[in-house]
This record gives sequence, C-alpha cells and structure tokens, in this order.
Amino acid sequence: MSTGLTSFTTPGTNRQMILAQRPQGTPRTTDFALREAAIVAPGDGAFLVRNLYLSADPVQRGWAANPALTPIDAPMRALAVGVVTDSRDSGIRTGDIVYGFFGWQDYAVATRADLLSHIPRPRAPLPAYAGVLGMPGVTAWLALHDIAPPREGQSILVSTAAGTVGSVVGQIARQAGAHVVGLTGSEDKIARCISHYGYHAAYNYKVGDLSATLSAARPEGFDIYFDNVGGAILDNAIRAMARFGRIVQCGTAATPSWNPPPTGLRNEREILMRALTWSGFVIFDHVDRFPAAIERLTDMLLAGQLVHDEVIRPGMDHILPTLEALFAGTNSGKMLVYIGED
Amino acid sequence: MSTGLTSFTTPGTNRQMILAQRPQGTPRTTDFALREAAIVAPGDGAFLVRNLYLSADPVQRGWAANPALTPIDAPMRALAVGVVTDSRDSGIRTGDIVYGFFGWQDYAVATRADLLSHIPRPRAPLPAYAGVLGMPGVTAWLALHDIAPPREGQSILVSTAAGTVGSVVGQIARQAGAHVVGLTGSEDKIARCISHYGYHAAYNYKVGDLSATLSAARPEGFDIYFDNVGGAILDNAIRAMARFGRIVQCGTAATPSWNPPPTGLRNEREILMRALTWSGFVIFDHVDRFPAAIERLTDMLLAGQLVHDEVIRPGMDHILPTLEALFAGTNSGKMLVYIGED
Repeated sequence: MSTGLTSFTTPGTNRQMILAQRPQGTPRTTDFALREAAIVAPGDGAFLVRNLYLSADPVQRGWAANPALTPIDAPMRALAVGVVTDSRDSGIRTGDIVYGFFGWQDYAVATRADLLSHIPRPRAPLPAYAGVLGMPGVTAWLALHDIAPPREGQSILVSTAAGTVGSVVGQIARQAGAHVVGLTGSEDKIARCISHYGYHAAYNYKVGDLSATLSAARPEGFDIYFDNVGGAILDNAIRAMARFGRIVQCGTAATPSWNPPPTGLRNEREILMRALTWSGFVIFDHVDRFPAAIERLTDMLLAGQLVHDEVIRPGMDHILPTLEALFAGTNSGKMLVYIGED
Repeated sequence: MSTGLTSFTTPGTNRQMILAQRPQGTPRTTDFALREAAIVAPGDGAFLVRNLYLSADPVQRGWAANPALTPIDAPMRALAVGVVTDSRDSGIRTGDIVYGFFGWQDYAVATRADLLSHIPRPRAPLPAYAGVLGMPGVTAWLALHDIAPPREGQSILVSTAAGTVGSVVGQIARQAGAHVVGLTGSEDKIARCISHYGYHAAYNYKVGDLSATLSAARPEGFDIYFDNVGGAILDNAIRAMARFGRIVQCGTAATPSWNPPPTGLRNEREILMRALTWSGFVIFDHVDRFPAAIERLTDMLLAGQLVHDEVIRPGMDHILPTLEALFAGTNSGKMLVYIGED
C-alpha cells in the first residue's frame, strides 16, 4: 500500500510546542508555549521527519519533569508518527513512515536512535502505529508475555482496562483463554470493556468497596494482575491475588506526585504469604523488540482479532487540550493530534 | 554411621509444652504451660517419634496465632529432630532419624505428612538436620536458586545476615562468585558475618543512615536483595537496587503485628522504574524438594564449604527462654533444645 505521502512539501517554518516552565506535578496547559522555528536540514546519518500524528501519553508527565529529557524552551518530548521528507541515512528513504521521539513539532531532525519503528510499507492505517502498533500495544504485548503469559482458565485483572495498554492486554488475555476482569473509571468505559475489548466483567473502581468487588468477582483470587495505576487500587488487588500469582507493574498513574514519597499499606507480607511475583516493566528497555512485536500485533489486527480506537483531533491547537483530557481520565482510546494538513 | 539410638526406651509420660492462651502479637512465655500426657501408640500408617532436638523458629509466631495450626491446649506446633521408636509404616523403621512437625513434646505420633525429612542414614551431626540441613538451610538454598541465583560478579544484599537462613544465603552467594553484603543488628554479628560466613562487608542496620550506608556499600546498586525482615529495611534496600534486580521475600520479621495493617513507603514506582522482580517464597510449598536440597547441602557441609552453628540448650525447661531470645534477636546460630536425656 502506498502512503501517497512522498509528495509532501516542506513549508517554511516549524511550529513547536515547547515546555515553557517545569511543571509542578501533572503538566498543565500553562506550562507550554507555541513558537515557530526554522526547519533544520538533516546532517550525515540523520533524516528529516514531517510529523503527521502527535501522541499524548501518560509517560509525558515523567518526561516533562525531567530536565535531561525535556529542557526548558525545547519542544515537548513526545512520540509521533511521521513521514521522512529528506534523508542522509542510507537505510531510511524519503516517503518512509517512521514512529519515534520526534517531539511536539511539525518537523524533527532525527536519527535511528530516535526511532521506535521504521515502517517502509505500512500494512495498517498510520494512526495505529502510535497506538495499538505503537508504544501502548507493544507494551501490552511484551509485558504480558514476558512477565505473566496468561494460560487457559487462569484469571487476570487489568487496571485502566479501557486504556491504550489495558485494552490490548484484555484482548490478548481473552484470546489466550483467560477469565478477564477489568477496572476502569466510568460506566461508559465499563460498557466499552465488555462490548469492544472482550472483558468478561468490568467494574468502576470509584464505586463501592473495591475489596468486596474483587472478592466477589473472583473468590478464588486472580492469577495475574496487570497494573497501570498503583496506589490504593494496587493495594486492594494484591489482597485479591491467588497464591503464586504474578503482578505486572506497568504504570503508576494513580499517584500524581512521588515527591514527597507517598505512603500506603505495607505489601511485603502479601508478596510473601501468597508467594507472588511482582515485576516492573519499562518499555524503553525493549526497543529492539518493537519490530517483531509489531508484526505479530499487525497480524492480529488484520485478522480482525484486535479492536483498536484512535481519537484523532485535527491541528496543533488540540495538543494541549488532548494532554489535559488524558490526565483527567476523560479520554477514550488512543488520543492523537493530526497536524499533516495544518 | 550408626546413630546408636535404636535402644532408646519409652518412659512413662510425654511432657508437652502446650499453648495455654492465644498470644497477642509476639508469643510470650506466659502464653505456654507444661503438662504431662500419656504416650499414645501409633495406629496403622503412623509411627512414634522420640524427639531429641526441639526447634524454635520465627515462623512459630504465625503458627501460634493460627487456631487451625495450634489449637489452645495442644502442644505448640514446632519442628524437631527425633528418632523413631515404634512404627506401623512399612517405609519408616525403628531407629530412623526424622525431622518434621512433631511439636514441643517428648513423643509425637506422626505420619509421613508430618515429615520434612527422613534420614535413615545420617551423614551429618543430628542437630544440623534442624538447621543448615533443615528448614532454614533448605529455605536459603531453594529460595536463592529459584528466585535469584547469583552469578559471578553480581552483588547481593542479605538481611538477618547472620541468621539461620541469611548465613547460608551469604555462603552460597559467596561461592557463586557474588559480592555479598550483609545487614545485621550487632557488632558481634557483623564480625561473625565476615569471619564465619564469608560476607565481603556487613553493616548494623540500627546505626547511622541506612540509605547512605547502602549507597556507599554498592554505588551501582545491588542485583539481588534477600529479605527476611521487610519494613523500613526493605524500603531502603529497594531504593538501593540496580535496575533489573531481584528481591526474595522470605520473611517479615521486622513487623511484629500485621493487625492493624501497617503502612510504609509506597514501593510500586521503584518496582516499575528499576524494572525489579520481587518474589515471595514459602518453604512449605516445596516440601517435596527437601531430600534433593539436603543432599546438596550435606555435600557442601562435608566438603567444608558450609559453616553452621547450633546453640544447643539442654532440657525442656529451656524451650521458652530460647523462643524469647529468638524474638529478642539476641540469639546467634540455630537455637535448639536437646531433650533426649531429660
């Protein structure tokens, strides 16, 4: 399939959404500013990317807090799907689709070190490469398979069950024959978990006594907990685990700030008595495994085995409201901003 | 080697140290009472054990708290090494040495379900079968090998480093070529860690800033933490781990009571960001693996590769002071009470 994008021409300026001040906790729209910069030509070994789909991701909270990752006055560190418009790297050609750390801007000079995937011949719609075939989908795939591959008849609990990672975890687990239970934050998302992502059951963690909800959902305990939130939800989930269960720690979205260090229930006795195994997973430790995981996920997608949702807003102006909605939890599906026609 | 114990004769009564009342938290000597009972003859499939070495172990805090494990007025649930004096089990013969759940009493009617090991031909001194060749030694061996086998050049931190489990962990890790650092509670025990158990370094967790101590001990972080205590020591150790490190949760001795649930630092972000794996290990899930582990440990012992210490007090009167010393942390080595000549 041709992307039809090789004819993309270079306009005169590069709009950049820069980090204007270091956020206190969760980034707010006032922490950013839009500016225009010149488009820089790529040097040897580099290439120029025209960004098409800018991504907003929870991990950007950490990136915005870290001066080494996002200096003040630099474009916000971000993932994006773009098309190569100029290349001084012999393995990357004009017209190739790429996904990587290109920042919130129209144009990025990048090298292979900035890439998460290089897609010369896309088999799926381009927005999918930032979602179900991008960081969230590959995270779900690798974390679940590495740490806690679900087996037929096992039970799995998933937090942020309707999110970009959770929804893929739920679907993979369901296809493996597991009993899949989701936790999410609204009735709409519960409905989506069941109707779209194949969860056997889903619950609103904000309603009622979560401990009682989990006991009733799986009296014999869960074999796997895939956690994207931490905090009190995690504390309850640990106490709802079956012995020899496995916990995947993939995010800590429930805790807005770790400074000062928050406290909670001590969990080591649960780890011990239930003989649990609790593992952290950071997707950026596994960048070399993206191509293989994307191939498998694309096969599932094209076979109709993987439901995915992208919410695409048009124009650079939408990136800050998108980030805001992400942290407010009012989003549904993978949130992208299309800037290819601005 | 003959144990010379087959001629043991049966006296008329069975002294039992019973649990007289349910302990509040850590058991106290006033929770127990001595009584005499008749010796019961074993039925079909059972055998009579004359206890020789009664064991006092930290896990008895949990056993004493649990009515299903230790009913009021029953002999305190305990491990012991004894000799079979009568048998109605065709595979267990009079004179065989056995180690298992025989309780704090002179005589126990037992079945194979009560055994942790059956030692028809002991290759090591009998007290060792309750220590370095018993629950503590086998726990160290299996937990370390199952969850976090140390490799040449890796670093391992061990809490209760001079204890019955920790001292074996330290020695196995040292022989595997790891850099071994211990945490313990007195200068005497530090000296013992270094001179007896082969630790490269050991520190008193009660002295100074533990976080700073651990950073200085291993600036690049520990690859393995073998934890027997939990609590604040665990919180500090987690924050001193290298990425991709492994934590073995083998005990929670630092927390005297879990009711009401204690709180502490939230640790899920450390698990996530350091990509740690934290696993609980309960030795009683692995009873079928005792024989093989004991063989390997006995080989090491006889080859002079495993230092072990048993502190043996004579007479049933010593069992309660021994338990008290155990929970006070004033013990050194495996604490046993010999009742064979009472």
